[in-house]
Parts: sequence; C-alpha cells; structure tokens
Amino acid sequence: MSQKRIGLQTIHLPSRPAICGSAAFVGKKEGEGPLGDRFDFVTQDELYNQKTFELAEKQLYLDAIRKAIRKGASRPEEVQFLLGGDLLNQIITASFSARDLGIPFIGLYGACSTMAESLALAAMLLDGGHAHQAVCAASSHFCTAERQYRYPLEFGAQRPPTSQWTVTGAGAALLSTQPKSPVLAHITQVCMGRVVDLGISDANNMGAAMAPAAADTLLALFSDTGTAPDDFDLIVTGDLGQVGSDLLHQLMREQRTPLPDEKHADCGLMIFDREKQDVHAGGSGCGCGASVLCAHLLPQMQQGVYRRIIFMATGALMSLTSSQQGESIPGVAHAVVLEGAET
Amino acid sequence: MSQKRIGLQTIHLPSRPAICGSAAFVGKKEGEGPLGDRFDFVTQDELYNQKTFELAEKQLYLDAIRKAIRKGASRPEEVQFLLGGDLLNQIITASFSARDLGIPFIGLYGACSTMAESLALAAMLLDGGHAHQAVCAASSHFCTAERQYRYPLEFGAQRPPTSQWTVTGAGAALLSTQPKSPVLAHITQVCMGRVVDLGISDANNMGAAMAPAAADTLLALFSDTGTAPDDFDLIVTGDLGQVGSDLLHQLMREQRTPLPDEKHADCGLMIFDREKQDVHAGGSGCGCGASVLCAHLLPQMQQGVYRRIIFMATGALMSLTSSQQGESIPGVAHAVVLEGAET
Repeated sequence: MSQKRIGLQTIHLPSRPAICGSAAFVGKKEGEGPLGDRFDFVTQDELYNQKTFELAEKQLYLDAIRKAIRKGASRPEEVQFLLGGDLLNQIITASFSARDLGIPFIGLYGACSTMAESLALAAMLLDGGHAHQAVCAASSHFCTAERQYRYPLEFGAQRPPTSQWTVTGAGAALLSTQPKSPVLAHITQVCMGRVVDLGISDANNMGAAMAPAAADTLLALFSDTGTAPDDFDLIVTGDLGQVGSDLLHQLMREQRTPLPDEKHADCGLMIFDREKQDVHAGGSGCGCGASVLCAHLLPQMQQGVYRRIIFMATGALMSLTSSQQGESIPGVAHAVVLEGAET
Repeated sequence: MSQKRIGLQTIHLPSRPAICGSAAFVGKKEGEGPLGDRFDFVTQDELYNQKTFELAEKQLYLDAIRKAIRKGASRPEEVQFLLGGDLLNQIITASFSARDLGIPFIGLYGACSTMAESLALAAMLLDGGHAHQAVCAASSHFCTAERQYRYPLEFGAQRPPTSQWTVTGAGAALLSTQPKSPVLAHITQVCMGRVVDLGISDANNMGAAMAPAAADTLLALFSDTGTAPDDFDLIVTGDLGQVGSDLLHQLMREQRTPLPDEKHADCGLMIFDREKQDVHAGGSGCGCGASVLCAHLLPQMQQGVYRRIIFMATGALMSLTSSQQGESIPGVAHAVVLEGAET
C-alpha cells in the first residue's frame, strides 16, 4: 500500500498542493449578510443582467473562476483542468461555463458536497503529477434551485422551519504546484465520503439528511489519521444549517468524539443572519460552502487566523424523481484538510 | 512540468493501471443485438423485477459493479473509490448504488462521456498512489432517459431518422495497481476533453452535437503524443451513431487527419443491428459505451485481438431547461488509451 493512503478513506498528499487564488461572486441577499464585505462581487438582483436565472448563475460561475485564476496570477490557457459542478440537472452551469473557458473539463455531481469533492480530486491530480494547475468551482442560485427542486417561484410556497435558503453564489479556487502568487492554504489530506442514509425523506429537512454523512466522514478522518477535534483550529461544514449542525453534534457525542462548540462552524450559519434575514435553518446549496470558503475562510488562513482546518461539504443526493417515488435522501460528505502556508 | 503531462490535454501514466475485471448487465433489446452473447446478463424486460424503471437501472448498475469486482477477484470492502455517474437528474442511479455498496463515492456527470471520464480519473488516482483499487461505472436506461429528456413513454412520440436509441445497460470496470486476476488491459494515457459547441440545438441529433468534441479530443491526443490513427488497432467512439460518425470522419478529413474506416468503430453502431432493430441512427446513452467496452472490447483485448486502442466516449451536455431556453448543445469527449497486457 502506498504511503499516501492512510486507513480506509483518508489520503495524505505529501506535495501539499497550494491554493493560490480564490474568489466568490454572490447575490444581493448574501451581500447583506454578515460576510457581505468579504465577497469579490455582490450582484444587485438575482438576474445579474442576464435573460434567465440559469444564465445569471452561469455568469456568477464564470466570473468567480476568471477572478480566481487572475488572483492566482495565471490565465485560463495555463489551467489544465476545470473540476466543477452545481445543483442543476445535468450540471448545466458548470458545463456551459466550461464551454466558454475552453479548459479541459471534469464534470462532477456531489450536490452541496461539490466544492470539497472538486478540491479533493484536484489536489490528488496535482499531487500525482498529472497537472500543474487546476481550478475548482461550485455554485447555486436560489431561483434556479427553488424552481427545479421544489415549487415555481411564483407559487410563493410557505417554508417549514427546518428548510434552508439556497445561496445565490459561486466560489472558485485555483490550485497550483508552483504558485506565482501568495499561497492561501495547502491541501494536505483529503477524505472521500461514503453515501449514508438514515431514512430521512423530507426534502425540506436536508440538514438532517446530511448530518449522518458528515459524522461518518469526520469519524473516518479522525480514525484514519489518529487525530481529534482539538488537533484542528476549526471544523467547517458546508451547509448543515442549524438542524443539521445540532444533529451532527449529537451523533459525534454518541460516538464519544464530541465536537466542542468553538471548534465547529457551518457555512450555512455564517453566510446569513438568521435573526434578520428570514432564512429559517440557514443557508444551503453548493454555492454556500464554496463562497464562504473562497471569500472568507481561505483569506483568513492566509492571514494566519487559522493554521489547520477541516473543510467538509455535505451533499443531499436526492432528485425530484427519487423523492416522488418515496425514496429517502442519501447524504455524502467529503473533507479536505487545509493548512496555512507557514505550517 | 511533470513528465506525466504531454502537451495540452494528454497525460501519460507510467504505472499503467490495470483493468482486471469488467461486467455489463443489459436490457432485452441489447441482448437481441449483435453483441447479445457477450453480456454478463440480459434482462427479460425493462423493469428487471423492480417497481420502477429507475430502480431497474440502479439494479443493473449494482449488479454490473458487483460482478466486475468479483471477476477482479476482489470484494467491495477492498475497493477504495467508486467513480461513476449516469444520465438521470442528480445521477440518482450512481448515488443510490453507492449507498448500497458503501464504497467512498466520487460522483461524476459527463453525460455519455461518463465511462471514459471515470476510467481516466480512476487511472490517474491509481497512478498517483492515491488508491490501490477503484471501480468505474456508467449506465443508461431507455425508459428512464426517454421520459426525463424527451416525452412520456405512453405518448409514443415519433422519432426522426437522426435520433438514437438509448441503451438499457450498465457497465463496470475494476482497476487495480496489484491485480489478483488476469489483466484485461492497461490504461497508459488519458486525454481530457474541452467542451465544444458548434451550434447544434436539435436534441434529436446528439451525434452531430458530439462529433466536434470527438474530433477536438482526438486531434489533441494525436498532436500531444505525436501519433496518428495508424498507431492504433482501433479507435472506438462511445455513441456517435451513424450521423455523428459520418461527421467525425468529415471533421477529421478537414483537419488532414483522416480516420480510415477500418480503424474506427462506434459502440452505438455495434450494439444494435440497425437493419433489424429500428434504432434509427444507432444506440446512445452512457450505458452504450460502458457495456460495449466492458463486455466486448476489454475481453477482446485480453484475447489479443487488439493490442492498442483508443476508447473515447462523447457526451452531450444539454438539459431540458437549457434546450427549452434555446441554448445549443455543448459536447465533450474524454479518451483513454488501452494497451494489451503483453505490450
């Protein structure tokens, strides 16, 4: 067995691929939240000067990628892989963006786990010597997701307290083996998740559907590497929201690996002010974790606020068809360990 | 630059990851075609003893994966990654299969290019030392695809001559760095495609939408590696069908790299008898290339019929939404170079 494989799910990356550029383009509501001044750009409405919400999401995606590449002092022609996805059927946001960029494209679907899935894969490809530079991206859009997964926007459906508000935003990160700009963080380990399903079938309670997968991957990472929550400055989940976060803490306590409150943060709880912004259980969507990571966490790592964190994005893998056929919602969580440049 | 990177898109894999088990489970119509006796299992109807067509597709997927792992003398618990996808919204076939298998899951969406995308990624992960064993899979199902992408089955829509017939079938391949069973083939190079769109917007003519991407990737592979069609025993495309194959030949002639007829085969033309089976321009769907590769081409490589082939699967990256909004159809093609065990 290669020295890179630790235990069942965790992979060690001796070359420590660097993230050297990141950007997030978000919607108006996200700009009004607590992280509003961190984003690279905040749109003034959900259409972002486009004809359709889908084209608006694609433009956010493209703009975030181009900005991340520019901040990494590179050009699209030098980037060897675009690894990305989104929440829309057939990941049209990512595919149509790839058409405009001309970068060889590896399309992913991991629902809201996409940003961690793409970072983990890109880091392994760079570590393996198969690429020099790769860009990772994920996005979501409240209006495209709501009408695809739930109800027409015009219907104005009432939302239960467990529901989350899909973030309008795209995040992108440039990885390089030979950074030409200051390094934000290194990816030193990745842990790829199994699909876990404890039987939740309520599509308005995705936090609960994803929490068991989050616990499963986190426990695998700790077990494989012999670490514990205290070995990290922060463990950041993608978009469990309040309901999912509470469940994750409960599941971790039951497994005798409690997560101290000060060690855990959830992007879905960071991006909105739940008191003032009426988002119920918090933010969601793969653009949630992606934009909080790319606009807030990575710059904080560069500033030395955190030296070693786990970024773990969780995905709920249902479709409208599977829900209508009575299936429960499988969840998955992928994790990357990020370390500061000076560690 | 690493020695593994050749030119812009092609990657050389010095460790030559081995495919050591493959299987394909297909539907009744596919079993009645010219390759009928090659498949591991042919179902007697489209429901395969399940309640829904979606569950039938998932069962084909699971059965193909389990058989491929068994033929590779391994067990699911020893397999470190499942890389796969399918055509359904949110790739529920792959995700729900991953739930049943418990193998760490990397969800992909590449439309009909999925089998080549997953093989290429898995081969790079093995070559990089990040895994020992990985299983790749892709599927499609006529009934799930038709009602998702086109019309309700009950409607009985008439099909134009350019349309293709979505294959009901799943193919799976086990890759290993230390094979415990006879090697079918080695993956020695991969070429990841760019997204190409020449403006085709007819969802009943996907061969034409995918042909430009096929030409783009093939020309990149030849240019990067200094090879020509004559350096390969066969160049196999996934599911261009007759219309797309004719266009690929035309595009290659225009680029002064003609594909000799005897060097090119298309899985969509191999799996059905177009004279007798009323499939118009041929077969399609990511289960088409996957099952022809896993049940026919790989065993032929093991038998020495072919020593060096290119397997290139093409995908049409539209969605119902993008088509309804008037977008044209972007295409992508990923290629893997397969070499026989004794080369």
